Amino acid sequence: MIPSTYTLTYARAQCKKFLEELKEFIRFASVSAQPQHADDTAKCAVWLANHLHGVGLEKVQVSPTPRHPIVHAEWRHAPPGTPTVLIYGHYDVQPAEPLDEWRSPPFEPIVRGDDIYGRGADDNKGQMLAHVKAIESILKTAGALPVNLVCLFEGEEEIGSPNLPSFLAANRSALAADCVVVSDTQIPGPDRPAITYALRGSLSVELEAQGPRRELHSGRFGGTVHNPLQALCEMIARLHDDEGRVLIPGFYDRVRRWNVRERAYMREVGPSDAKVLRTAGAAKGWGEPGYSLYERTTIRPALTISGIAGGYTGPGVKAAIPARAVAKLNFRLVPDQDPHEIDQLFREFIARITPLDVRTCVRTLLCAKPALIDRDHPYLMAAARAYQRAFGVPPVFLRSGGTIPVVSLVQKILEIPIVLMGFGLPDDRIHGPNEKFHLPNFRKGIETSIRFLAEMGALRWGSNQARAAPHEERIA
Amino acid sequence: MIPSTYTLTYARAQCKKFLEELKEFIRFASVSAQPQHADDTAKCAVWLANHLHGVGLEKVQVSPTPRHPIVHAEWRHAPPGTPTVLIYGHYDVQPAEPLDEWRSPPFEPIVRGDDIYGRGADDNKGQMLAHVKAIESILKTAGALPVNLVCLFEGEEEIGSPNLPSFLAANRSALAADCVVVSDTQIPGPDRPAITYALRGSLSVELEAQGPRRELHSGRFGGTVHNPLQALCEMIARLHDDEGRVLIPGFYDRVRRWNVRERAYMREVGPSDAKVLRTAGAAKGWGEPGYSLYERTTIRPALTISGIAGGYTGPGVKAAIPARAVAKLNFRLVPDQDPHEIDQLFREFIARITPLDVRTCVRTLLCAKPALIDRDHPYLMAAARAYQRAFGVPPVFLRSGGTIPVVSLVQKILEIPIVLMGFGLPDDRIHGPNEKFHLPNFRKGIETSIRFLAEMGALRWGSNQARAAPHEERIA
Repeated sequence: MIPSTYTLTYARAQCKKFLEELKEFIRFASVSAQPQHADDTAKCAVWLANHLHGVGLEKVQVSPTPRHPIVHAEWRHAPPGTPTVLIYGHYDVQPAEPLDEWRSPPFEPIVRGDDIYGRGADDNKGQMLAHVKAIESILKTAGALPVNLVCLFEGEEEIGSPNLPSFLAANRSALAADCVVVSDTQIPGPDRPAITYALRGSLSVELEAQGPRRELHSGRFGGTVHNPLQALCEMIARLHDDEGRVLIPGFYDRVRRWNVRERAYMREVGPSDAKVLRTAGAAKGWGEPGYSLYERTTIRPALTISGIAGGYTGPGVKAAIPARAVAKLNFRLVPDQDPHEIDQLFREFIARITPLDVRTCVRTLLCAKPALIDRDHPYLMAAARAYQRAFGVPPVFLRSGGTIPVVSLVQKILEIPIVLMGFGLPDDRIHGPNEKFHLPNFRKGIETSIRFLAEMGALRWGSNQARAAPHEERIA
Repeated sequence: MIPSTYTLTYARAQCKKFLEELKEFIRFASVSAQPQHADDTAKCAVWLANHLHGVGLEKVQVSPTPRHPIVHAEWRHAPPGTPTVLIYGHYDVQPAEPLDEWRSPPFEPIVRGDDIYGRGADDNKGQMLAHVKAIESILKTAGALPVNLVCLFEGEEEIGSPNLPSFLAANRSALAADCVVVSDTQIPGPDRPAITYALRGSLSVELEAQGPRRELHSGRFGGTVHNPLQALCEMIARLHDDEGRVLIPGFYDRVRRWNVRERAYMREVGPSDAKVLRTAGAAKGWGEPGYSLYERTTIRPALTISGIAGGYTGPGVKAAIPARAVAKLNFRLVPDQDPHEIDQLFREFIARITPLDVRTCVRTLLCAKPALIDRDHPYLMAAARAYQRAFGVPPVFLRSGGTIPVVSLVQKILEIPIVLMGFGLPDDRIHGPNEKFHLPNFRKGIETSIRFLAEMGALRWGSNQARAAPHEERIA
């Protein structure tokens, strides 16, 4: 099914207005992790709800959760037998720190060249707004959508979606759909579209080491008391071998081994080592021997030390032995690793390597399973046709090293297929300073979404027919 | 020589006023390390200068330096042949962080029981003010001091006295004295006075590890790029062996070995392991085998990791590989280690263990030599008699694990003996939260100072006779 020319013309004609709206959206400092931004996050949810109402969606709701609200809307007037598409996105963003590394303030979006800069420009405000603008374009020109549609936009993705599972479980019927579309992934280049078919899981923990009851003068006590900050470093040093393998016993036990065909396909379509390093801005690779860098970030798990705080870190000198020190660690997990089992293995290993004169404590902050999607599913084929029309080239199928907790949740709770339709670029610096979104991708994303909804409408399957359990097995 | 009864009576009668003045002094947040407190530090210097003028000292001056001013005053009307005593102190304090561990705000002094709480209460405001109040008591009652006197109070001790050497060198004649008194040490208990005869040197460095050009998403890149925070931990883990010995090649080469007699004396007068642990609030000792805890903090060097900053350390999760990480390290050094040589050995070792895919950089923040004082010197005997009269028991001679940069500077530049006349207690928590000063020690400190000046006046030696080079050799 081809969308009306009026719809595509509207979308192109409104691109200035759409950009201004994206700027408005980015201006909310909706940092879900930081309590000082709870109010900004709430305001962002209200703005988004008003916006969805404005584009013509119905039953718009802002549903409170114990932390940040979920914004929900729908349009269900398509003829019987038309599939229902659920569009998932998140309006919360990562913390903007370190602030001094931003060229312009993170919440004052600015266009430089073909890119818009600001926290959340790519992840996920720009990518999710592309769908909203597609919906607007269709409703304002055709008066009706080619499919039934549900929007589900949460405010807690960056903190592991703690309240999404219960919301999904409690609203199964209101959320009933045939597929979920998530645009929170990347494509290899502005003219190289891609559909993501695998995501790593994530486990974030905090490891605290506690030593003396209070901070001690390093002159008076240096050399007599075990320093918890030193002990923390020594424990962290025991988590990897010299080549980058994780040393936690049992860590690799459930990691799935892939056959030659899958690894050949990955080599064919995935980025080369040189490309990964260029994107990272690193001169040299590092990590598990025997795998390409693309494989190391997709079919192999990893452990990143993402932060350490301990002792005095201000200007000059404060010569003291700290009483405690804390590290934040992030595991990225692959099928068939289970985040809860890895959490347990980590805790056991830490208990074993904790020195006698130091106490340790582990806190689990975030837990999300890895996910795999059948890349031959008809909905993915529909997405592939939409990409081809909007970008002029067919998409490749890629794995991502990232995690979108909702993907495994949707697979488990709603039991419907997921289409990961990314518009981000590898150099968009999501989670880092100077995050950006490439504006041509914003415009092509809107067109891809318009065309995808048209393709889905053309399928006109009964929803039961289209439902399927996750198809991990089909790929291996 | 016995001080006039009027003087001691005045000192006792004025103790409430003296306490109020100590509170005023502590209220200045004179944190020399933190630029945001530069103004508080300057105001503190002016307050101190006015105070010295008020007690009757002359030629009071506030001398600017590139950072914090030096306050200087004198009284030189004693009869010819009377010794000149230089009293050194510092009005700057350590940073007060971590602020949330203070029971009451660090710069709002408060008396609880027999103690006054506040940053600098012991180190060094309380201890140095004891001398000023002694001077006041003598001048207000006797109208003249029994010795010539110079006060030298700096504002940069806690950052390593960077501008003191040039001030000492440039003002040699104005500062001409027969001995220097420094009260910046501790005594074992309220009724157990002590004179310190050895101090460790100090070397503080910053070690920075640099990885990718910018922070990277730990999903997209985790497992492919060497994480500088992890590399920093791994390098730090290589600085000590499992038992606590420092592994930097050559580190122990110049450490002096002490004979049986000296170690027996240390065992006799020094704190037991149990006492050191009780003071530290630690259950178990740690460190170099073959030495008591007192020996480990005095005749053995030590290396303390005093702070690490890297990555995201705020609430919740920010899953990123940081671009850089910084550790602060503090060495405590003993005769005959040279801080500059140890700095060089550390730099060479770090260069050797830096992984190929990470860059490191070492910055030297502070450098002070270890110091030893002849414990048979007549001025130390004068101090011992003053302690005995004020406390009712003779002092013991102790080594301290701490560092007072001025001590080795004075030995080197002014070439006169030093008397380390401490009034602090081991549990005063200097450099830590809830620092305190024991008020009976403040009062006994004033009396000890009054009696010491009287004892020094009684010596009535010519200044040349009393001068001596540092007597490290005599003790060994």
